[in-house]
Amino acid sequence: MNNTDNILAKVKDNKEIVGIIGLGYVGLPLAVSFAESGVTVIGFDKNQDKVDKINHGTNYIEDIRDAVLRDVVDKIKLSATTDFSRINECDALLICVPTPLDVFKKPDMSYIESACTEIGKHMKAGTFISLESTTYPTTTESFMLPIIEKESALKHGDDFWLAYSPERVDPGNKNFHTRNTPKVLGAMTPDGLKIGEAIYTKAIDSIHPVSSPRIAEMVKILENTYRLVNISLINELALLAGKMDINIWEVIDAAKTKPFGFQAFYPGPGIGGHCIPLDPFYLEHIAKKYSFDLSLIHTAGHINMRMPHYMYIKISTALNRHKKAVNGSKIFFLGVAYKPNINDYRESPALDIMDTIIHKGGNVSYNDPHISKVKTNEGNQFQSVELNEMTLKEADCVVLTTNHDAFDVDFITKHAGLIVDMRNMIKEGNDNVYKL
Amino acid sequence: MNNTDNILAKVKDNKEIVGIIGLGYVGLPLAVSFAESGVTVIGFDKNQDKVDKINHGTNYIEDIRDAVLRDVVDKIKLSATTDFSRINECDALLICVPTPLDVFKKPDMSYIESACTEIGKHMKAGTFISLESTTYPTTTESFMLPIIEKESALKHGDDFWLAYSPERVDPGNKNFHTRNTPKVLGAMTPDGLKIGEAIYTKAIDSIHPVSSPRIAEMVKILENTYRLVNISLINELALLAGKMDINIWEVIDAAKTKPFGFQAFYPGPGIGGHCIPLDPFYLEHIAKKYSFDLSLIHTAGHINMRMPHYMYIKISTALNRHKKAVNGSKIFFLGVAYKPNINDYRESPALDIMDTIIHKGGNVSYNDPHISKVKTNEGNQFQSVELNEMTLKEADCVVLTTNHDAFDVDFITKHAGLIVDMRNMIKEGNDNVYKL
Repeated sequence: MNNTDNILAKVKDNKEIVGIIGLGYVGLPLAVSFAESGVTVIGFDKNQDKVDKINHGTNYIEDIRDAVLRDVVDKIKLSATTDFSRINECDALLICVPTPLDVFKKPDMSYIESACTEIGKHMKAGTFISLESTTYPTTTESFMLPIIEKESALKHGDDFWLAYSPERVDPGNKNFHTRNTPKVLGAMTPDGLKIGEAIYTKAIDSIHPVSSPRIAEMVKILENTYRLVNISLINELALLAGKMDINIWEVIDAAKTKPFGFQAFYPGPGIGGHCIPLDPFYLEHIAKKYSFDLSLIHTAGHINMRMPHYMYIKISTALNRHKKAVNGSKIFFLGVAYKPNINDYRESPALDIMDTIIHKGGNVSYNDPHISKVKTNEGNQFQSVELNEMTLKEADCVVLTTNHDAFDVDFITKHAGLIVDMRNMIKEGNDNVYKL
Repeated sequence: MNNTDNILAKVKDNKEIVGIIGLGYVGLPLAVSFAESGVTVIGFDKNQDKVDKINHGTNYIEDIRDAVLRDVVDKIKLSATTDFSRINECDALLICVPTPLDVFKKPDMSYIESACTEIGKHMKAGTFISLESTTYPTTTESFMLPIIEKESALKHGDDFWLAYSPERVDPGNKNFHTRNTPKVLGAMTPDGLKIGEAIYTKAIDSIHPVSSPRIAEMVKILENTYRLVNISLINELALLAGKMDINIWEVIDAAKTKPFGFQAFYPGPGIGGHCIPLDPFYLEHIAKKYSFDLSLIHTAGHINMRMPHYMYIKISTALNRHKKAVNGSKIFFLGVAYKPNINDYRESPALDIMDTIIHKGGNVSYNDPHISKVKTNEGNQFQSVELNEMTLKEADCVVLTTNHDAFDVDFITKHAGLIVDMRNMIKEGNDNVYKL
């Protein structure tokens, strides 16, 4: 039996072991989805705290139900470890590590590099490897393959198979989760694709195969670039609409009645999260290699980067109408998560606005029912304060930065003296409410 | 009875007369929709030929069924005239005139101005007026109102009502036509809105009222700008993908499997038609007044303007691989309509590419089953030649510019020696097919 037949037979008999590298927002739901379907899963992470939590059945991701995690851990379908040598127990390795940007907005490939090195050192022959992290097209073939082949002294196609299958996790989405979101899969060889489909099918309802990893890499970039460009477009229009005395929210609601050729996006203080604000820079990175100028995407990224600054101007303008300066004023932010009803504040524009306000001499506080403390890019640290009549009244300006369902808009409107509403949370405006 | 009660009573009793000014792609379907519902319609146009055709029951718009037009003309529900003094017979006037750009890409408001002047001169008191043409926000209030009040010596609010209700005509759309496409309506006063809703409801199933004409004007601009920006984005990505050996069409098909937060757009030789390529310039025009820089929209417009040039490069590159230059080669274009299955070639990118090829010394011919002759922007005139084995074989390069259903792709692929496919019409590629 060759390696291909061997792994396919194992998968057919439900005897394969799936290793998930990186147990964050992407990796843990994926691990749980496999374990729920009866596959034995080993989760790898360098963070001892996360590993301990999982092994105790303690959930730390809002989109996973606690009972489900406890159940698959109790049944020993899912266990976690910091010991990467256990990679050699696995038949499939799915890499779900972060791909952040460095401070110069260049892709930080160190997590992928480290995962590939560990895999190369420890994996056995006959292993299927798939990257799920967002990255620039050609990463799988040109960046990962050489590292794994060098470290393992194994040969792709015969001894292991490499693929790319982008995660499509949308935290807080009530309708779509890991299992029922179709998954794109591009492998380097037909055998790799066949094996990848057999493995992923256990955790995901629908697999969409494509002809190469670079196609799959571009798919993810297209999806996220589409969102970045459209949010930037509506932010640009919102800023113009503000000058023209046009309520952009009413415009969007009306445009949505068009039954074809339109999808609504909403303005806000900027785009957060670990995907959309970053991906265009990944594409720009590789485009440079081809001497190609991505003018539209560059402009969209620029608008997004400027949004926190425009939001500072909005706050300053609102205070000015009350004859106050930012300098010395108390600014109370409601919501630091980058989108509603989640506990993630990575790349959240609220933090950038807070940093700017502090620079200008303002006193900053915040409340977020999902996040008890934050540290900004500039190192400022805050703890969530109570949201009550007193904290609202004491603030010179209350800024609505995240539209959490938990916020009682009527209560806030009643007690705050001045509000800047960046999320259209207050439908009936009054003189003390300034909208984006 | 005041003017408001009077016109509402007339509409209720089906005694109102609706005048439609401009009998093109927007006006004629709207006129037919009103007439079909039993409303008496007078169509106004300066073009005697169009007027004669309508009065003879001869249809010239592909989206209207010939029998339907004949029927409403036979029943004298719809008649047409070049005599604008008959405006005084009308209770409602719906303006569907063109709003092109001049050669410097500035809005050409002369058609709206002329319509408003005629209306002002001839209308009776108690008339409802609505503009449907795409234009920049504030046009209704700041451009139309003063002309009509001056010419008529009547007063808005008492003697007449002004509104804006953007057309959403999508030529060739099989599912959505005038009646079943929801219509946004913004009037200057509550009375005007009430009257407008009563009138439009006869021709349109669903009316979405908004709080002002400028909101409705911005809605149309948002809808079309969304399309321009997204087509420009996918064109930019397509050009990069070409360099990276990535089939952009496969990428789009895979991205479409994402069940939320994505809408597919397709690359092509550039955007044509009378709306999408023009509207951003309308918005830029008014943004200048507010000293506002629409960087994203500007960039999108720029990419679109450059596409015909890139397409020339594609053709030149394809010929080059056959050791031929554009200069002296025969280039045969299939399709000059700006989108499939329609007979409209306004702003069609095919024409710009043809002009460029002629500039560079190429010999140009075309076939379009829907358009028998064309005149390019530079004044070159062509007649559609037959599409057969000989015309395909004689061409040094066959360029697929419009994906009409009528084109037999297998036949074309079989007989053409070299093909540049700008519309992904040929699914199975071969060495003689170059894709965008």
